Amino acid sequence: MGGDHKEGVQEVEWRIKVEEDNETLKRALVGCMWAVTAGVVLKLCKFVKKAWELGVNDPRKFIHCLKVGVALSSVSLFYYLKPLYDGVGGNAMWAIMTVVVVFEYTAGATICKTVNRICGTSLAGFLAIGVHWVASRAGDQLEPVIVGVSLFLLASAATFSRFIPTIKARFDYGALIFILTFSLVSVSGYRVDELLVMAQYRMSTILIGSSLCIIVSMILCPVWAGQELYVLVTGNLDKLANSLQGCVTQYFDCTEAPEAENEEETRKQLLGYKCVLSSKATEESMANLARWEPAHGRFNFRHPWSQYVKIGASMRSCASCIDALIGCINSDNETSDDMKRNMSSISMKVGTNSARVIRELATTIRNMKKSSKVDILVTEMNSAAQELRNFLNSYPNMLSPSSQNNAKDTQTEAASSSDDDDDVAAKREIPLIEIIQVVTVASLLIETVTRVEGIVEAVEELSDLAKFQPPLCVKSKQHTTDNKFSPIQQKDDEAMRTLQIV
Amino acid sequence: MGGDHKEGVQEVEWRIKVEEDNETLKRALVGCMWAVTAGVVLKLCKFVKKAWELGVNDPRKFIHCLKVGVALSSVSLFYYLKPLYDGVGGNAMWAIMTVVVVFEYTAGATICKTVNRICGTSLAGFLAIGVHWVASRAGDQLEPVIVGVSLFLLASAATFSRFIPTIKARFDYGALIFILTFSLVSVSGYRVDELLVMAQYRMSTILIGSSLCIIVSMILCPVWAGQELYVLVTGNLDKLANSLQGCVTQYFDCTEAPEAENEEETRKQLLGYKCVLSSKATEESMANLARWEPAHGRFNFRHPWSQYVKIGASMRSCASCIDALIGCINSDNETSDDMKRNMSSISMKVGTNSARVIRELATTIRNMKKSSKVDILVTEMNSAAQELRNFLNSYPNMLSPSSQNNAKDTQTEAASSSDDDDDVAAKREIPLIEIIQVVTVASLLIETVTRVEGIVEAVEELSDLAKFQPPLCVKSKQHTTDNKFSPIQQKDDEAMRTLQIV
Repeated sequence: MGGDHKEGVQEVEWRIKVEEDNETLKRALVGCMWAVTAGVVLKLCKFVKKAWELGVNDPRKFIHCLKVGVALSSVSLFYYLKPLYDGVGGNAMWAIMTVVVVFEYTAGATICKTVNRICGTSLAGFLAIGVHWVASRAGDQLEPVIVGVSLFLLASAATFSRFIPTIKARFDYGALIFILTFSLVSVSGYRVDELLVMAQYRMSTILIGSSLCIIVSMILCPVWAGQELYVLVTGNLDKLANSLQGCVTQYFDCTEAPEAENEEETRKQLLGYKCVLSSKATEESMANLARWEPAHGRFNFRHPWSQYVKIGASMRSCASCIDALIGCINSDNETSDDMKRNMSSISMKVGTNSARVIRELATTIRNMKKSSKVDILVTEMNSAAQELRNFLNSYPNMLSPSSQNNAKDTQTEAASSSDDDDDVAAKREIPLIEIIQVVTVASLLIETVTRVEGIVEAVEELSDLAKFQPPLCVKSKQHTTDNKFSPIQQKDDEAMRTLQIV
Repeated sequence: MGGDHKEGVQEVEWRIKVEEDNETLKRALVGCMWAVTAGVVLKLCKFVKKAWELGVNDPRKFIHCLKVGVALSSVSLFYYLKPLYDGVGGNAMWAIMTVVVVFEYTAGATICKTVNRICGTSLAGFLAIGVHWVASRAGDQLEPVIVGVSLFLLASAATFSRFIPTIKARFDYGALIFILTFSLVSVSGYRVDELLVMAQYRMSTILIGSSLCIIVSMILCPVWAGQELYVLVTGNLDKLANSLQGCVTQYFDCTEAPEAENEEETRKQLLGYKCVLSSKATEESMANLARWEPAHGRFNFRHPWSQYVKIGASMRSCASCIDALIGCINSDNETSDDMKRNMSSISMKVGTNSARVIRELATTIRNMKKSSKVDILVTEMNSAAQELRNFLNSYPNMLSPSSQNNAKDTQTEAASSSDDDDDVAAKREIPLIEIIQVVTVASLLIETVTRVEGIVEAVEELSDLAKFQPPLCVKSKQHTTDNKFSPIQQKDDEAMRTLQIV
């Protein structure tokens, strides 16, 4: 009895415990679910916020979405309005499909796809009807064989053509549509009776969809691939100039420590060259699409878009030099402060002058006017590079205390004079390791100058091909006669300098 | 009469002349046409020959074309065989369309598109049927409005989602298909009566087409995006190693002029780094596609493909350093032959050791086994770089004739000792300009070594993530205990050296 009572108590305790456990489990489960839900909601919120920012940063993306909505809504009228629906023989589906598949972000891409779709469809349609006609005359037994073999051969050939670079770049979509249409028409000819009528209706609906796309994409806030390419290239030129000047300043200009708030900005500017290095694919695809665009803004129909790709390539060559330069600057070599101080002004000059040339090139492209200044700036850049070379040339003779202060003034004589041998004996020995970094930086700067000349050549070629306006006559005369800056140029330069100091 | 006669003669002469002119014109025209035809035919021949070579160089391209032909021919059976045609309710068109649109070169791309197509279609189908159900209950007046507004909103939202990078990388095609299906189903619901039946048939045909594509693409000589990425990355590592070693050899090794036939080969090897610089886009797209692939060959399902992109990035960083290096080598600075000769062996060592590390990394990835040698090789590379640094450090003390020959042996003492002042007085002054190139090359070599370490880190991360097999225990024990080469390693190294000499 006592044992029973005890057992009963144990049982109750156990039940209470189990219930308590259940309660805890439930609470834990509910808590867990809440946590998971909250986590998912939080993640979703972050995602939506990020996506929203993407649109706010470039409102044209929002506009593009509205444009797709408008195009689709208008093309769906072919379903809603009975006369239109009957007018295309119930084939309105193809118009909708065309709009969905063909409508792209840039006008160039839309036009490219439209032209590809129309050409691919018509070519394949004619061929398929021809094959169908031949096959239908060959008897019931042979018909599927002829159609099947021709389908196999043509589809394989068209697929292979998509591997050929020139076709891939321009007619990839057309080849796909060719295969699609040929298969659909030739094979369905086996089941459908009025093949010609069907083909006609489909062609007309595709034409309707295509024209709607082109109209909407070109009239409602058009995004031109050419314009995008142009903005990308000029922006990259500026980024390159900022990076170059930034890294030279960072290395040589130790006078002022950057403020904390500016530091982030400076760092961002310094790494701008990475954008240049990574924009090859974008540039190439934009240049391919821009070819399809009609004249727009300041660009005529046969604007030499491929030249922008060349400019991009020369920029990348320059950027990889800057990459090596920044790598050297960040390496932990000890440097002789003496030499760095001595070289500082002259190297800064090379950096600033190169950056100025690059910025002038950006301005040339932006204004689409040949620059009257660029020749002078290139000469200045080259003479600064030559000064740097001369400086390096004369360096061992310049370490004596007497000549250290007026180093810059005497460097040209110093290079040739060798009669101050007593100076040589007095000067301090600098181990090579202390100057290796500064020498490398100087050498890479000189190499950068060479590569900047490559950009100059590419931009000049563009200005010839695209027939940029020549600079004003007065300026060019001044330039040739006395080689002085015009007042406007001086003002520009002052503004530039202020900008660089800021 | 005499006048008449004269006129008659003139007329005849004129006629003869005109006929002669006509004859000449005709001949010129015919000749011109022949020339144009011949030109076109010649161009076409060249084009076909080029295309053919494209296929011969990579026969998998031919196989892919045949695969497309096979897939299309088999899916067209749904038209030819009556029971199959009726079985899908006459919707066989959608199976053909799916095959044409979804079949891609790599299995990864095919799977990605298939999954996207199926998910996009089902999601959009359900939503559209829901909207149609709601709209059909709202009365004839409101139906098109509800359908139109929902179409506008959903199409815009789906279009916007295609701008979001994560969705763009993986579900771009799915979003497109979502818009397509939603428009077709919701709008055609207004005209078609048995919407559910139609949706069911279409879904089943899409499933048939998709499974056919996946089967053909994965069973007949599959081309795996993962495998392609893997081959690309290992190949690029080899190219990088060849470029690095090639440019160091070209600069320092003046003993043997390259033979004419080898010259082209050498030049090609030297420029291999350009492939590395330009393969960013390919690597990224391959890595994106490889994620969709099932386990194949030596890769399991969750193989860390994104790590290959990181390896690619570190390779590009190294390649841009090599680009700057080659730029410096090709610049027309005069160089002191003395210093170049002195530095030659040590710089070649740095170059060779770095190249050896890169090659070993390629081997590691190829064998998918952690390398027992890579640590030793990295240590050797770093110690060579340190030797180069020490050499530069001690350089001013090494120009006296007595120490020039045993430069390498005494450099470590020379760096610290400063009691041989009499040597200093005896040595020749070298202007900085003469050593700037060689110093820059040395400095860039040291920078390259740092960047090679970046590649080593990335590859090690890969070997951890992908759980590469550890090296054999015996070797690793040897390595930790006495740090000597195993006989196999020695043999490998000898083979390597022979290879490098050749």
